Amino acid sequence: MRAAVLTGVREVRIEDRPEPEARPGWVVVQVESASLCGTDAHQYDGRIDTPFPRVPGHDFAGRVASAGDGVDESWVGVAVAVKPSLPCGDCPECLSDKPFDCKRKKLIGLWSDGCMTERIAVPVVNLIPTPDGIEPWQASLLEPLAVGLNTVDRLRLLLGETVVVLGQGPIGLALTRLCALSGAGRLIVTDAREAPFAVSRAYGASDCLDVTQVDPRAAVLELTGGAGADTVIETSGYPASSAIVLDLVRKEGKVAHIGWANDLPPLPVIPIMAKTLTVFGIGGNGGRGQYERSLELVRSGRVDLAPMVTHRFSLDDAAEAFEVASSKSGGAIKVLLTP
Amino acid sequence: MRAAVLTGVREVRIEDRPEPEARPGWVVVQVESASLCGTDAHQYDGRIDTPFPRVPGHDFAGRVASAGDGVDESWVGVAVAVKPSLPCGDCPECLSDKPFDCKRKKLIGLWSDGCMTERIAVPVVNLIPTPDGIEPWQASLLEPLAVGLNTVDRLRLLLGETVVVLGQGPIGLALTRLCALSGAGRLIVTDAREAPFAVSRAYGASDCLDVTQVDPRAAVLELTGGAGADTVIETSGYPASSAIVLDLVRKEGKVAHIGWANDLPPLPVIPIMAKTLTVFGIGGNGGRGQYERSLELVRSGRVDLAPMVTHRFSLDDAAEAFEVASSKSGGAIKVLLTP
Amino acid sequence: MRAAVLTGVREVRIEDRPEPEARPGWVVVQVESASLCGTDAHQYDGRIDTPFPRVPGHDFAGRVASAGDGVDESWVGVAVAVKPSLPCGDCPECLSDKPFDCKRKKLIGLWSDGCMTERIAVPVVNLIPTPDGIEPWQASLLEPLAVGLNTVDRLRLLLGETVVVLGQGPIGLALTRLCALSGAGRLIVTDAREAPFAVSRAYGASDCLDVTQVDPRAAVLELTGGAGADTVIETSGYPASSAIVLDLVRKEGKVAHIGWANDLPPLPVIPIMAKTLTVFGIGGNGGRGQYERSLELVRSGRVDLAPMVTHRFSLDDAAEAFEVASSKSGGAIKVLLTP
Amino acid sequence: MRAAVLTGVREVRIEDRPEPEARPGWVVVQVESASLCGTDAHQYDGRIDTPFPRVPGHDFAGRVASAGDGVDESWVGVAVAVKPSLPCGDCPECLSDKPFDCKRKKLIGLWSDGCMTERIAVPVVNLIPTPDGIEPWQASLLEPLAVGLNTVDRLRLLLGETVVVLGQGPIGLALTRLCALSGAGRLIVTDAREAPFAVSRAYGASDCLDVTQVDPRAAVLELTGGAGADTVIETSGYPASSAIVLDLVRKEGKVAHIGWANDLPPLPVIPIMAKTLTVFGIGGNGGRGQYERSLELVRSGRVDLAPMVTHRFSLDDAAEAFEVASSKSGGAIKVLLTP
Repeated sequence: MRAAVLTGVREVRIEDRPEPEARPGWVVVQVESASLCGTDAHQYDGRIDTPFPRVPGHDFAGRVASAGDGVDESWVGVAVAVKPSLPCGDCPECLSDKPFDCKRKKLIGLWSDGCMTERIAVPVVNLIPTPDGIEPWQASLLEPLAVGLNTVDRLRLLLGETVVVLGQGPIGLALTRLCALSGAGRLIVTDAREAPFAVSRAYGASDCLDVTQVDPRAAVLELTGGAGADTVIETSGYPASSAIVLDLVRKEGKVAHIGWANDLPPLPVIPIMAKTLTVFGIGGNGGRGQYERSLELVRSGRVDLAPMVTHRFSLDDAAEAFEVASSKSGGAIKVLLTP
Repeated sequence: MRAAVLTGVREVRIEDRPEPEARPGWVVVQVESASLCGTDAHQYDGRIDTPFPRVPGHDFAGRVASAGDGVDESWVGVAVAVKPSLPCGDCPECLSDKPFDCKRKKLIGLWSDGCMTERIAVPVVNLIPTPDGIEPWQASLLEPLAVGLNTVDRLRLLLGETVVVLGQGPIGLALTRLCALSGAGRLIVTDAREAPFAVSRAYGASDCLDVTQVDPRAAVLELTGGAGADTVIETSGYPASSAIVLDLVRKEGKVAHIGWANDLPPLPVIPIMAKTLTVFGIGGNGGRGQYERSLELVRSGRVDLAPMVTHRFSLDDAAEAFEVASSKSGGAIKVLLTP
Repeated sequence: MRAAVLTGVREVRIEDRPEPEARPGWVVVQVESASLCGTDAHQYDGRIDTPFPRVPGHDFAGRVASAGDGVDESWVGVAVAVKPSLPCGDCPECLSDKPFDCKRKKLIGLWSDGCMTERIAVPVVNLIPTPDGIEPWQASLLEPLAVGLNTVDRLRLLLGETVVVLGQGPIGLALTRLCALSGAGRLIVTDAREAPFAVSRAYGASDCLDVTQVDPRAAVLELTGGAGADTVIETSGYPASSAIVLDLVRKEGKVAHIGWANDLPPLPVIPIMAKTLTVFGIGGNGGRGQYERSLELVRSGRVDLAPMVTHRFSLDDAAEAFEVASSKSGGAIKVLLTP
Repeated sequence: MRAAVLTGVREVRIEDRPEPEARPGWVVVQVESASLCGTDAHQYDGRIDTPFPRVPGHDFAGRVASAGDGVDESWVGVAVAVKPSLPCGDCPECLSDKPFDCKRKKLIGLWSDGCMTERIAVPVVNLIPTPDGIEPWQASLLEPLAVGLNTVDRLRLLLGETVVVLGQGPIGLALTRLCALSGAGRLIVTDAREAPFAVSRAYGASDCLDVTQVDPRAAVLELTGGAGADTVIETSGYPASSAIVLDLVRKEGKVAHIGWANDLPPLPVIPIMAKTLTVFGIGGNGGRGQYERSLELVRSGRVDLAPMVTHRFSLDDAAEAFEVASSKSGGAIKVLLTP
């Protein structure tokens, strides 16, 4: 069985690997589509420590090929999306049948071999059956939507609020679309590249600010009559973007932080008090139905994932796929891999 | 000055009336557009007791013609929408500068002569300046939107919820549009006429049920896999519609009641408990910024009022306008009157 | 093994019954305390159809005596409270390890033999281990607290709200205590007996209204300066009480319905709209951690259950226990049975 | 008329000042009680820049002595508490009769001469009539309660939550009491002095941590079984206290920041995201009814302010009053001044 393997920083090889086996409670999934996310690119670039050699990848979809002991045989042949983290199996939550409350979940493709291969074994609790009309490439792109849903569920926009989404990578674009669907009025987005703005506009952005050309602070204040936005969502993970969130938001407004990086500047406390702000930290996809609801948003056509997909490669071209995802060359947003 | 006058049940005449004068704290508004709402039609039909003769009408927009004592002269010439109820001026709230918390507000056109005339005097606190790009006919149609905003503000939809809107008159249509903007997933609407469904679909309805053709209870359960809708909003004010709200909603769901009529059946308590429901009563436009936000929804193009306007008449043809609004003939939804 | 058996309406006998056995996934619990609730009394009186002969009772606590296959042996000897309804075991929720989302749960003691015996078999998922310092009689009295918590969690009182609790049976008293703990300001309670008012006052009630002596509508309006209460909670299940909830609550206030009876009058819709009310239906204990939090309220001393316990009987005197619970003689509130 | 005057850093003199006069819309209040807050002490110590000479003080109560033009004469003789900030009178909010939305409000006693005198002129909109049973010393102590109410209103505690209040100065003590009334379960407080802990316990604290004796981080984790508290409220304004809030709170918990100082350390963003926290900034008393509700909490006895008052002085002894408030000697919490 073929697999793409990270053998070192910026080194991807196609290797032959043994077939996976389904332990009790697990299944083997035939991978039909995998997508590359920022974490994959960071592993490739060496910005995330990875125990090489490692088969990367955690965002994928496919079809159940075989089922281990204790798993209902009717799963075999079912088309599925797969949640990206493995419960530890040992903690009180896992032992009392609540594996998704497990606090020691481990990302597939980092702490164990991942999905950039032909077949992979996962616990049956990680599976989400996909309905008719959902294709594998769509089912492999649910993570940014699920993270975005976890965000808008907590922000509870009032109809007509002015929202700023900082950063238009996949999570930023997902939030642009989800805020447009959730009642945002003026919807201002920023990025350091022009490339994603065509998608931003298709998703409902009213104003796209290229931060290499305009000062986003001055621009947002001008667009809001000097008051600041009702809600500001930082998804970029860039220090310069994170540093201005408290300047962009209005008195009594809301701030959400999703973009994650080790070098983000800390938040001063005085403006949080002086402006009577509420700051929401978003740590992931929530794990409480957000995947299932993301599927329905795609199935119903309310979210069209196609504009986000800029590149598709076969598994044999995994090295090129990682290079594109890492460099973001050619206007790359989402890169898909088909085994 | 000409005015349309209700002189009795189903009797409208054009009469000459004296010019209004602006008392201290009041202004005279030159009426540029008035719209007929259900209350006007009920007054015409005799279903609401009206002290005849009476100039009807409370939904209107125009331009400030003159200002009374104590009113800033800069108001003169300003284009305005007008809130439809007069504060009493005598209660503790009115006396302490909070006229919009007045509990004895009186509807213009019912308790005093209304807007179906050339000029009318109103308190300056009833005025909302309209921004550039808003035309008078739009500014005279804000009430259904303001009532709808007051509803969705309280319901706080979660993105993707299944919503049923019962009745597709102006308020039902406004709620169809506002729920679509606020994140409704499947959005099912009902009416006893096919006429409004083209607007419903343009506003975002996914399923339109003609209750003269299908059983809405069976249809909603089938569309929701037997579970019922997350949220059900009754706007029709018809007993047959009000009687089924608790059947249409899912366990732990939400219900809103807006449609008002004296013959509505009461709600049984057991299903409210057994299904763990939350029932919201909506009594009007809320009076806390909903008019201003409605204006912005129209200005930004997120709500297009044009499809709701089916008929336009000049003031001299007020009798015909009332007949159309009362009979709903010719697919009537909203009828406008231009002095 | 001895058991109290309902052999017909108002007929209780002590009989010898075979020992229960623990099926896979189940345990046998040695009953150390059982409490009688309104449902038990209704079964005894014949107001709830019961398949006689039936061992009644569902509110109890004890110690695990033996464990079936698949149950961790460390459960044996553990002190436990027991949730009162059995998941069906057959539905999609039960089959996917979410038995507490089962929509066909059946009350112990009604649809299967209950706890008024020495030992009973229950599924391990129904057990809640009780911490040190909790005695069995306390652990057998958690249901009214759990129902009350499910209520105050949804009402979200603002500190200082005026609250009315209609009915001071066990659930009404539980809500009196929980509202006092949750920030109620003026806390008005009603009942048709003076007996529970000493407990009401100890639990934090500020005003106790005997509805056989005063008109509660007039009294509440007087105590609230004519405005009505911020929140009204109906727990009595009596038609005369249920009929006045909408009169007692202020404009923009909240209403909760918990008291359950087939003859409750329906709610008129117009006042719900005219007063802009929110009506909450409460269908039970919620099943999402309310039992566990109730235990902690008792353990920490914030809720003292002792004042509610007016009568204690041994299992052999079950007939007298039922008579007292049914007649509410001797100021009965809660009646305990010890095997 | 006598007044206490700050003539420089740590210099207080009693001087003769001219009688104030009531401008239109203003009244003169006969001061009956004033209280010293942290701001007054900071002005005295020179930590807040003050234009000397200045009559300090903004927390006070008294009786209306005379009324200016346009003020209802029935105000004269009314007992009142006074809100501590003056609207600017010039901004759009002030000019449209919403002075309490004024964004340029100025603290009395800092930007204009304050209340440590016999009589002072204030706008009528700053007055809150005090009901029978409220004494002037109580009415002069409402500010910490109003700030605390503004905090618990936003936190919306679930009954039984574990709460930590960092700092037990007047605002910290107010929050201890308000959290106890709002449903806190375990209620842990910290301070660097033992002195306030007797009041903390009387107000409902379950655990008092002297941070000079124990490590609050270790202690809170131990008291919460390693999980952290549900809610953490920082009131001290000390860097060492502010630095640990994110360590004390559990995953998915809430943090409120009230304690204000220029040298507070900023908040790192990663733990806010990793723990999925919500951070609330509290900037003052909210200005939307919190003063009125604070009065009612005192009137009803639910908040007993007496334990907070450790020292009382006459106006002539203002210098000593400031020295005690600044040094916190003698276990000082709240210091009152009576003209």
